[in-house]
Amino acid sequence: MEEVFQNEIIKQILLKYRTIWAIGHAQSVLGWDMEVNMPKEGITERSVAQGELSVLSQKLILDKKFVELVEKADGEDLNDYERGVVRVLKRSIKIAKAFPPEFVREISEVRSKATMAWTEAKQKNDFKLFEPYLDKIIELSRKAADYLGYDEYPYDALLDLYEEGLRIRDLDPIFEKLEKELKPILDRILEEGKFPKEHPLEKEKYDIEAMKKVNLEILKLFGYPLGTRGRLDVSPHPFTTEFGIKDVRITTRYEGFDFKRTLLAVVHEFGHALYELQQDERFMFSPIAGGVSLGIHESQSRFWENIIGRSREFAELIYPLLRDNLPFISNYTPEDLYYYFNTVRPDFIRVEADEVTYNMHILLRYKLEKLMINEGLNASEVAELWNDEMERLLGIRPKTYNEGVLQDIHWAHATIGYFPTYTLGTLLATQIRAYITKDIPDFYEKVQRGEFEPIKEWLREKVHKYGSVYPPKELLERSFGEGVNPEYFIEYSKEKYL
Amino acid sequence: MEEVFQNEIIKQILLKYRTIWAIGHAQSVLGWDMEVNMPKEGITERSVAQGELSVLSQKLILDKKFVELVEKADGEDLNDYERGVVRVLKRSIKIAKAFPPEFVREISEVRSKATMAWTEAKQKNDFKLFEPYLDKIIELSRKAADYLGYDEYPYDALLDLYEEGLRIRDLDPIFEKLEKELKPILDRILEEGKFPKEHPLEKEKYDIEAMKKVNLEILKLFGYPLGTRGRLDVSPHPFTTEFGIKDVRITTRYEGFDFKRTLLAVVHEFGHALYELQQDERFMFSPIAGGVSLGIHESQSRFWENIIGRSREFAELIYPLLRDNLPFISNYTPEDLYYYFNTVRPDFIRVEADEVTYNMHILLRYKLEKLMINEGLNASEVAELWNDEMERLLGIRPKTYNEGVLQDIHWAHATIGYFPTYTLGTLLATQIRAYITKDIPDFYEKVQRGEFEPIKEWLREKVHKYGSVYPPKELLERSFGEGVNPEYFIEYSKEKYL
Repeated sequence: MEEVFQNEIIKQILLKYRTIWAIGHAQSVLGWDMEVNMPKEGITERSVAQGELSVLSQKLILDKKFVELVEKADGEDLNDYERGVVRVLKRSIKIAKAFPPEFVREISEVRSKATMAWTEAKQKNDFKLFEPYLDKIIELSRKAADYLGYDEYPYDALLDLYEEGLRIRDLDPIFEKLEKELKPILDRILEEGKFPKEHPLEKEKYDIEAMKKVNLEILKLFGYPLGTRGRLDVSPHPFTTEFGIKDVRITTRYEGFDFKRTLLAVVHEFGHALYELQQDERFMFSPIAGGVSLGIHESQSRFWENIIGRSREFAELIYPLLRDNLPFISNYTPEDLYYYFNTVRPDFIRVEADEVTYNMHILLRYKLEKLMINEGLNASEVAELWNDEMERLLGIRPKTYNEGVLQDIHWAHATIGYFPTYTLGTLLATQIRAYITKDIPDFYEKVQRGEFEPIKEWLREKVHKYGSVYPPKELLERSFGEGVNPEYFIEYSKEKYL
Repeated sequence: MEEVFQNEIIKQILLKYRTIWAIGHAQSVLGWDMEVNMPKEGITERSVAQGELSVLSQKLILDKKFVELVEKADGEDLNDYERGVVRVLKRSIKIAKAFPPEFVREISEVRSKATMAWTEAKQKNDFKLFEPYLDKIIELSRKAADYLGYDEYPYDALLDLYEEGLRIRDLDPIFEKLEKELKPILDRILEEGKFPKEHPLEKEKYDIEAMKKVNLEILKLFGYPLGTRGRLDVSPHPFTTEFGIKDVRITTRYEGFDFKRTLLAVVHEFGHALYELQQDERFMFSPIAGGVSLGIHESQSRFWENIIGRSREFAELIYPLLRDNLPFISNYTPEDLYYYFNTVRPDFIRVEADEVTYNMHILLRYKLEKLMINEGLNASEVAELWNDEMERLLGIRPKTYNEGVLQDIHWAHATIGYFPTYTLGTLLATQIRAYITKDIPDFYEKVQRGEFEPIKEWLREKVHKYGSVYPPKELLERSFGEGVNPEYFIEYSKEKYL
């Protein structure tokens, strides 16, 4: 295989970058271990270690010689891969440079305290406990936007942190369209009642060891390289983490009932993992290895979760496996399974939302975040506004803070600007469905037969193998000839649910 | 509690040291994960990450400003803790300075290749495959000794790497004494036959889940803080690793038969873990946190394994627990258990050796290592000499390389000079037994009743709480008024076995 990095300056950059890469690798392992293994009191030393490694990594990114090399390379005649390296590093340097060290320290302290306050507030269902921290986080996020700079709105600067190049002017039309079109679809689904609001399978209790076996078998069906390049573990919240191209691990949780929650989490995380596993190995140790953005990443996980995992054909494929391991399944048909995976109901909690209502939850957060950052909305006004919006969008009004404004950890983590990437991914998944079924007309038959290799190969060729070579918008244009387009999601929802 | 670090320069040093500490923390987590969790192919990226972190850590230790601060502090009026910080850091700086980067790279490469060659040689039972690598490692180890410098013998420089201040002039009299005294004791034990050479319990097969439960219960008896500050996991070779004072993990392995191997491994590793867990918490993030040397560390593990774990009282204590979980135990008495834990037989493999023959195995390696480093012994002569010595010391002659020179990984890892610390620890464990039974006359009754708190407290006060404040020899003098003294081990062996 041809070397992707030819330019001498790029080679020098990559040699230096290996140290930064290694710190990132270590931070990922430390983070994974914290969620999966760490004994409780380990947190004291682990936090300090993570903090020190962050500071060290920033120092190396801003090292004068390193920055000079990157600037020098920018003027060279480079190939796409090399340009990708320069683009990603310039972005990292820009972000690292933007924030003064005192600010980084302050935001990191506020984040810790806010997370503790949020945890307590949630336990006591008392928003007042979290309110002052949210105000502080809004203030610091606005400051962050100022440090980063923006053309139109301060919120744009935050959006770009999570999705390179994303701005309000991209998102507003998308969310307007969704708001206008989704409500009537939802009303019709509820009216027709073909897709139930609740399903008896939600109440069925499962044996955790049996369920673990089911999840592992599904991963084997997908061809996830358990033991050679991956693992499945247990953590409070399911997640995927990559320590490189050759070690990409996923987690799930076992609640003992409503097994679709653990099963679809595994399918979702597999989508994230596959994106990392199918990188071009020549990118190893370089800044262009790894998924390019949160939105593109979520498109992969949502594709596996929603398009494959919630399909009738997938329900048929895994039915025997479920029946053999979960005794209660014998009382149900594959068709029952399909409707159980696709209940539709307006509900309060985002992470439990179905395909149709999910984006409404994001829309609500997007509106509030814009108001916080661009319009000076205070924490004291957020809780009421949340409830009003929820009532307007889904026709239900939270009775507790936990059902409303306190449900997500994101704001406590000071990651304002993150939520919209969930919708981008969800919409993109339906676009990918449209493109792949054109190239692979018997896509759903393949799912039913468990023939995932051609599907994985297609995803590799269209998305995965590019790593972070191109920014997200350019990647979409190159592979699919268009960017995020909510029409596909609307069409998909109509076709599937009506 | 009083601050232990008062001096302003020391405080500056410790602030800078936190980054070095954090890298060490990360390296430990990466190492632990590699043994316990890592999917196979993860090794490519993990090795590069570990290499980069090592280089980075060395760079920070040799950072000009850091070295200047340490030198400056050396001239200050310091308390014991602060002097400990300076001593440990001067030692690290000296070692880091000694080796030119090309040498570090070369030895690291040779180590990787030698380990692979050793693995293959072992699989094929063919010493010739490993021989050229062993020659290279002998050559590089001699070079390392020259870089480090020494007063009497080059081997002294290597000994000091693993046990601060240890020299041939300390070890020769110890091993001479052991060689002279142990052989007659061993002969008498074998003649008398009270302690059997083999025991039927060695052949009993156990259920792995049941055995896991037993191990966990024993750790609970000891008060090991499972889940709060520790974990028990599975790895190919049992080990302990500390990520700090608050997260100290141990591993064991399950072979499915001869359960004392997994059980006593857990007891052994608990001894290591306790040393780390009982550090003075004020040392956190400083270079004096953590056990001071391999020899002192091994004294703690051997104390728990040999003095407690192989005692009649411990067999009585855990008998009901074993009987409740391992059905075959009902056919045996606590007394059977005691003799099973204390079989004595000349055998080939060091890691399976009993208390009496164990030090003979180390003696053999010590002799060979001295010849390699001081006298120019070549790899081609090592295998035969090994067998001759084994015959002379234990009266048995290996018939395969795997039973002889190929059994240990240490030389492939280029850690010549490491083995003697095993004997130091084993001897010290019997000294500690003598001291503790003076202070706690009902020591063995306490073991029988599972009252480990006063024993742990005694170990904390005499050894653990000092961390690395004093060099090993000074620690022993301060706490016990004498250094390593083989008389205790001889007496103990006579008393126990004759």
